[in-house]
Amino acid sequence: MNILVINAGSSSLKYQLIEMPSQTVKCVGLVERIGMQDAIFTHKKDDKKHSEVTPILDHEVGLKKIAKALLDPELGVINSVDEIKAIGHRVVHGGSRYSGTVLITEKVKFNIKDLFDLAPLHNPAHLTGIEVAETIFTSAKQTAVFDTAFHQTMPKEAYQYAIPTIYLKENKVRAYGFHGSSHKYVSEKAIEHLGEKSSKIITIHLGNGCSMSAIKDGKCIDTTMGFSPTNGLVMGTRAGDIDQSVIFFLMKKFNKSADEVNDILQKESGMKGLTGYSDLREIEEKAGNGNEECQIALNLAGYRIRKFIGAYTAALNGLDAIIFTAGIGENSILMRQMSCENLEFFGIELDEQKNDIRSKEIREIQQDTGKVKILVIPTNEELEIAKETYDLLK
Amino acid sequence: MNILVINAGSSSLKYQLIEMPSQTVKCVGLVERIGMQDAIFTHKKDDKKHSEVTPILDHEVGLKKIAKALLDPELGVINSVDEIKAIGHRVVHGGSRYSGTVLITEKVKFNIKDLFDLAPLHNPAHLTGIEVAETIFTSAKQTAVFDTAFHQTMPKEAYQYAIPTIYLKENKVRAYGFHGSSHKYVSEKAIEHLGEKSSKIITIHLGNGCSMSAIKDGKCIDTTMGFSPTNGLVMGTRAGDIDQSVIFFLMKKFNKSADEVNDILQKESGMKGLTGYSDLREIEEKAGNGNEECQIALNLAGYRIRKFIGAYTAALNGLDAIIFTAGIGENSILMRQMSCENLEFFGIELDEQKNDIRSKEIREIQQDTGKVKILVIPTNEELEIAKETYDLLK
Repeated sequence: MNILVINAGSSSLKYQLIEMPSQTVKCVGLVERIGMQDAIFTHKKDDKKHSEVTPILDHEVGLKKIAKALLDPELGVINSVDEIKAIGHRVVHGGSRYSGTVLITEKVKFNIKDLFDLAPLHNPAHLTGIEVAETIFTSAKQTAVFDTAFHQTMPKEAYQYAIPTIYLKENKVRAYGFHGSSHKYVSEKAIEHLGEKSSKIITIHLGNGCSMSAIKDGKCIDTTMGFSPTNGLVMGTRAGDIDQSVIFFLMKKFNKSADEVNDILQKESGMKGLTGYSDLREIEEKAGNGNEECQIALNLAGYRIRKFIGAYTAALNGLDAIIFTAGIGENSILMRQMSCENLEFFGIELDEQKNDIRSKEIREIQQDTGKVKILVIPTNEELEIAKETYDLLK
Repeated sequence: MNILVINAGSSSLKYQLIEMPSQTVKCVGLVERIGMQDAIFTHKKDDKKHSEVTPILDHEVGLKKIAKALLDPELGVINSVDEIKAIGHRVVHGGSRYSGTVLITEKVKFNIKDLFDLAPLHNPAHLTGIEVAETIFTSAKQTAVFDTAFHQTMPKEAYQYAIPTIYLKENKVRAYGFHGSSHKYVSEKAIEHLGEKSSKIITIHLGNGCSMSAIKDGKCIDTTMGFSPTNGLVMGTRAGDIDQSVIFFLMKKFNKSADEVNDILQKESGMKGLTGYSDLREIEEKAGNGNEECQIALNLAGYRIRKFIGAYTAALNGLDAIIFTAGIGENSILMRQMSCENLEFFGIELDEQKNDIRSKEIREIQQDTGKVKILVIPTNEELEIAKETYDLLK
C-alpha cells in the first residue's frame, strides 16, 4: 500500500511516499517558503535529486507540484494519483479527544479546527494540508496522526495543573505533550529490542524541540512538554521550564506585551539565548575551545535532562532503560554523556567507547555492569505515521 | 543576649524575644491589620495572653505598641529597651549579594531597597520594619537574615534560566529560592541527629508556601522555588510549576491583564483552585469522604513532591535522608504518606505506624529496612534568625 505522509507547516510541506508493510521509502521531498515568489521545491528519489526555486503562492500549488513530481517519468514513483491509497497527515494537536490515529471525516476536521486556539502555529496549517490533499488525491483515504495521541494515557496527576479547575473543564488547559509519534516509535523499538526487561523506560527526544517521556508497560505516564511545546527541557531557541513570574517581571520592567515576551521565550531563548548560537555542533565546538557561555549552556541542558531522569524514575519507581533519539540524541556524543553523568545511583553507567561510535542502527551504549540499558534509537516519525495509517486501514 | 526577632509584613509585625545562647523564648506576639482602625495586637508571655483591637495606622505605632508590651510590668520581659541587644529582621530577598546574615548598614538598606523589584510584596515592608526599629531600639544592633541566603550556594546550572543572558547579567533574573532559614535549620538539625550518614539530604518544607531543597554536605545545591516564591510545588493558593504558555493563553482568551493572571496563579490556584478549599485538613477530610476533586488535588500535590525527590536524588546522585517540616510537613500524616509512596527504588520505605505518631520532637519514621532516613523535624525560623544574629554578634 502506497502511503503519502504529509507534514504541512504554515509555509512548508514535507512529504514521503512509503510503501507498507514493506516500509520502503520511495521518495521524499519538501516545499519551503510557501507564499513567496522564491519558494523552494526539493524532491529526492534514490540518488536523484531535483531542486528548484519558483513561485509557490499557496499550499494547493505546492501540493500540485508534489503530485506532479510523484508522476514524473524520471523522478516519479507512480503512474496515477490513484496509486496513492492513503495519506497520513501529521497533526500536532489532537486535544483530549484523540488517543490514536483516525480516518479524517468532517467531524475530525471540525475538531482540528476547534483546537486552533491551543496550537495556533500548527493546526491551521495541518487543516490546509488536509483540505488541499482531499482535492488532489481524491481516491485516497486520509488519516490524522496526532503528536499528542501517545500521551493521552497520562494520569490526571501528570496532566492537570494546579490552577482553578474551570480552566481544565471549559478551556481544556492541561498538559498534552508532543513528539508523540517519536516517543511511541522509539519506545516500541526498545521493547522489541529488549524484550520483557523494559517495562520502565524513559525516552529522550533531543532535536530542534526536546522532550522526555516516562513510559510504563508501553504506555506514556508523563512527559516534559505540557500545554504547549515550549516547556520542559532546554531547546535550541525555546526556554523550557522557567518560573512563571519571570514573564510578569519582563512585561512590567520593559513594558513588553505578552506576545513579545512569548516570542523571547520561544525564539530567543534556550541554547541560543544562553550562547548566541543555536546550532549545537557549533556550541559544543566553542565549549571545547573554552567559551564559558557555551560550557554553561551545555551544563544547564544536561542537568535539566538528569533531573527529569530522576523525576521519571520516581514516577516509574524504577528504571530499565533510557533511550536517546532525534537529531541531537542520535548524534551528540557529548549531550548523551552529560545526560548520563553522575547517575550511578540509578544504575546508569555510560560506556564512553560505545557512546563514541556513530551508527544509524539501534545500539546499546551502557557499560556491561550498568543495570540500566542506555539505547540510541534513530527515530522515524514519518514511518510511524505510515505504520499508524496502514494499521488503521489494512 | 536578648534578641528581638521581627518579621515585618506589609500590614503585620510578628515578633519573638529570644534569649541566646540559651534559646529561651521569653515572649511572642503579632500586630495584624496595620493601617486599619480595627488592627489586632496580640502578645503572649508564658501562659498569659493579651489581645486587643485598636487603631494601628502604621508600623511605627505597631512597633511602639510592641515595645510597650515588652516593658509592661505584668506582660513584659525587660525593664528598659536597652536590654534588647540585637534585632534580627527576616528579609525575604537578599538577591545575589547576600549569602549570609549581615549587620544592617545604610548600604544594606540601600541594597534591600534595590531589590524591591524582585520582591515587591516583601522587601518594602521589611525595610519599613528596619527603619522603625532603628528609631525605637536605638542601642540595639540590627541584622538582616535573608530567606534567599542559604540557597546562594546553588551552582549555575541550578539557578540560571535558559533565557537571553542579558536578563541575568543586567536584571538578575535567576532562581533564588526561599524559605532558606527553614531549610537551613532543619538540615542542620538532621545532620546533628544523623551524624556522618547525611551528606545527601532533601528537605521538604510544606506550609502555606511549599518548597524543597537538595542539600549536599550541608550546602544547598538546588531548590524548587525560583525567581519568586510561586513556582515548584503545589501550595495552598499558589500554582507551583505550570507551562508558561498557559499565561499567554489565559491573557488572550479572557482578555486579562498580566496582573490579573498573576493574581489567579498566586491567590486562586494551588489546592484552593483545585478544590475550592485552602485548608489542607478540610481537603483531607473531604477526600476521605469521597470528594473526587479533593482526592485529585492531594494526588497532584503528592506526585509533584515525589518527582522532585527523584529529581534531587539525581542532582545528589544518591539519597541519605528526606526531611518533612513546617505546618503541613510536621502534621499531615497523609501528605507525608503520599510523598513517600511507590519510592522503594530510592530506598524510601515509610513506617505507617511511626508516621501516625504526633509529636513536637525530631523523629524518624522510616521502616527498619528503609535505606533512606525519613525525618520529621519541627522548623523554627525565628530561632534560626536569633541563632544567625547571635553568631554574627557574639
